Amino acid sequence: MKTEMMAEETMTSLNGLDVQAATDTIDALTKDKSLAKFQFRAKNSWINGGENQSTIRDFYGAGQEDMSRTSDFVFANGEPPVLLGNNEGANPVEFLLHALAGCVTTTIVLHAAVRGITIRELSTELEGNIDLQGLLGLDESVSAGYESIKIRMHIKADCSDEELDDLLSYAHGHSPVCTTVCRPIPVQIERVAA
Amino acid sequence: MKTEMMAEETMTSLNGLDVQAATDTIDALTKDKSLAKFQFRAKNSWINGGENQSTIRDFYGAGQEDMSRTSDFVFANGEPPVLLGNNEGANPVEFLLHALAGCVTTTIVLHAAVRGITIRELSTELEGNIDLQGLLGLDESVSAGYESIKIRMHIKADCSDEELDDLLSYAHGHSPVCTTVCRPIPVQIERVAA
Repeated sequence: MKTEMMAEETMTSLNGLDVQAATDTIDALTKDKSLAKFQFRAKNSWINGGENQSTIRDFYGAGQEDMSRTSDFVFANGEPPVLLGNNEGANPVEFLLHALAGCVTTTIVLHAAVRGITIRELSTELEGNIDLQGLLGLDESVSAGYESIKIRMHIKADCSDEELDDLLSYAHGHSPVCTTVCRPIPVQIERVAA
Repeated sequence: MKTEMMAEETMTSLNGLDVQAATDTIDALTKDKSLAKFQFRAKNSWINGGENQSTIRDFYGAGQEDMSRTSDFVFANGEPPVLLGNNEGANPVEFLLHALAGCVTTTIVLHAAVRGITIRELSTELEGNIDLQGLLGLDESVSAGYESIKIRMHIKADCSDEELDDLLSYAHGHSPVCTTVCRPIPVQIERVAA
């Protein structure tokens, strides 16, 4: 009985993802494209100096408000002393690297599962270069954002190097955070009257 | 004595930031632009399915490796059940909103201090719309990234509405994360041979 269950799990789960559920989701989205519309949200409050805190919980997707989370996720942004803070948390540009690393990783793991490829190990090291003349407005020809971001990836998978490189290239072009960084996305700041 | 100390703090600190230190930093960067070159870093390890974990600690800036942090920051990415996870953490696109909220907030607070403007309250609500047909590769004309991100900001400051709107517009153009999202930034994924 246990052997049967394990065999069944091996058939429907790959890389820790329920492949049947993924296939069902893709089928549902193909029939009704409105189910693919998601809205993610965050609330943030300034505390003092370079310290502020976000709460994240609800979002909309698959045609309804998600109710699966029973508590908030809470994250603190801070700054190191050299940037006038007290290391109250990682800083925002570091959180962006965390978001990028996670998104590229999950996109690879997901599409590997869809392709029937087992991932054995996956880790990344990210470096992002930034010139603070941009933030400080000391030279308007210097962009305030990252100049470039490099992801060094260690990955072991049950496929050829060619299949692996194709998977990585596909993930680069289909990761939501990677695409948000690589392409220009409009950000609107609306001041709400007090 | 205590009154003198408080008076001194009021003169050199604004919005929780040491204005003298900020001015000294700007003077130093103006004299030696290489001090403005920073490199931020993150390491991430895949755990299973949509779960992975980042550690963040060291970075390079102001001409040297930073040694101010005595422990790692650790953050988990996860996914909700509708995206095949178990809410192991906020997901990467939500962390991007956290990064964006924090960066815009800190940029406003910093430049307000430089301008001599006291911020009383600052909170934001962010919404980012995304069509998961992009991530899933169901329609190659649909971008995988955020379509747009809206920041609703509640802010009270000791200045006119015109000065406030100018400050917000300046922060939009000088926030490193906002600029990284609004402009195309190259991301390179390099597979390291096992």
